[in-house]
Amino acid sequence: MTGEFERSPRTLRERIRSGSFTGPTSGQAPGYFQGNLAILPEALAGDFLRFCVLNPKPCPLLAVGEAGDPRLPTLGADVDIRTDVPRYRIFRDGELVGSPGDLTKEWRDDLVTFVIGCSFSFEAALQRAGIRVPHIDADTNVPMYVTNIATKPAGPFAGPIVVSMRAFSPQDAIRAIVLSDRQPLAHGAPLHFGDPAAIGIADIMNPDFGDAPVIGPNEVPVFWACGVTPQMAIRAARPDIAITHDPGHMLVTDLLAERSS
Amino acid sequence: MTGEFERSPRTLRERIRSGSFTGPTSGQAPGYFQGNLAILPEALAGDFLRFCVLNPKPCPLLAVGEAGDPRLPTLGADVDIRTDVPRYRIFRDGELVGSPGDLTKEWRDDLVTFVIGCSFSFEAALQRAGIRVPHIDADTNVPMYVTNIATKPAGPFAGPIVVSMRAFSPQDAIRAIVLSDRQPLAHGAPLHFGDPAAIGIADIMNPDFGDAPVIGPNEVPVFWACGVTPQMAIRAARPDIAITHDPGHMLVTDLLAERSS
Repeated sequence: MTGEFERSPRTLRERIRSGSFTGPTSGQAPGYFQGNLAILPEALAGDFLRFCVLNPKPCPLLAVGEAGDPRLPTLGADVDIRTDVPRYRIFRDGELVGSPGDLTKEWRDDLVTFVIGCSFSFEAALQRAGIRVPHIDADTNVPMYVTNIATKPAGPFAGPIVVSMRAFSPQDAIRAIVLSDRQPLAHGAPLHFGDPAAIGIADIMNPDFGDAPVIGPNEVPVFWACGVTPQMAIRAARPDIAITHDPGHMLVTDLLAERSS
Repeated sequence: MTGEFERSPRTLRERIRSGSFTGPTSGQAPGYFQGNLAILPEALAGDFLRFCVLNPKPCPLLAVGEAGDPRLPTLGADVDIRTDVPRYRIFRDGELVGSPGDLTKEWRDDLVTFVIGCSFSFEAALQRAGIRVPHIDADTNVPMYVTNIATKPAGPFAGPIVVSMRAFSPQDAIRAIVLSDRQPLAHGAPLHFGDPAAIGIADIMNPDFGDAPVIGPNEVPVFWACGVTPQMAIRAARPDIAITHDPGHMLVTDLLAERSS
């Protein structure tokens, strides 16, 4: 899409804020961290913060806002979380009730913002190292699976760890493990590789979220903790209001991915 | 063995030099690098140095001496390679001709010393992380295999890469990959995991060197480049004289393993 590529995270946020950029953020502002969004009422914020700290692989915290304050100055001096994500999802009592392009009408004085690292930056590091990322090559969404590994619960937040899967040759899997370990804020090293049944995945070709995988004959599936984990925990907690990003439509930050570790 | 444990690499070398310590060096001076030894005539030293640089995973160079000089000051101010290894092996035209406890009689003005990192320090890092190392638990030698992966040749030095194998659960394998990558001078990250046939190993239970492996039901074999690789290349080159350490009887250096990367 002509004119849809921005190098600068600040310029991209300005375009999102003004409504001239409304699409997914994959590939935008390369080298900078993008984040999953979770906004919750202050009454639940303490439990959710504890949930993130207890489960750093699926929930690596990039930032937490002050109650009622839409700014996140550590992620960018200009960030206003009400307007700087291209598309949001609003849940009431755990049910999706809307997908607006801004939160101006929804904002409340008791809302607390959480930004959680996502896998885009480590996938970019793999690509820079010459490793092909199967779902990017196939232009599909990464396959994601609910596992039988439980998160450590905090208050009403609990549930299974969700993983994303990428298949590689053993040689590339070794390099992917090393490179992802260097980005703990992008989910870090994987949780598992090999036999899907060992973590409760019955059918690798039938993911719970995303698209069916591409797995070559000499490739091994490698499983990373996924940012869908906190989203499932939030929905299960059924808060009166919860706001997330729309999948693929992330907050683009000023944090350099290479400085994440 | 009472009195056989030394914390200080310098004290250990003094005991080896005086003949009061003659055993294997595994577990001695924990936290310090130990090295594989290769001593060659100056006429072959340039080619062997190039072989090491071309093949850094099997041949991570800790130090190279000056021709005729038995000192290695970067590994320890007092090191004398003629006396500071508990037991040596002498090869003439590729054939083993003796296993002396010192090299005083063998030393020549044209001999060049190479010290190559070994896996002891990364195994120690795994153990500190709470990962069980199967062959250490079983009190056996690590199993080693000749692969179908060729080294990059230099002059008369060539041949296959030899790997050592340790089996882990996928979770421990991921941590072992990450921890070993941090020690590039101890062979670094593994070359392969999983199917042994993919790297030309016909029977995993029947290693070419060392003892038969211990592999649990949910464990995956992980293969690291091994310091036997340069020893095979040296024997194949059939130099008029070549000297190595006797297996397990390494040069203990003053280099801290944690500073290796």
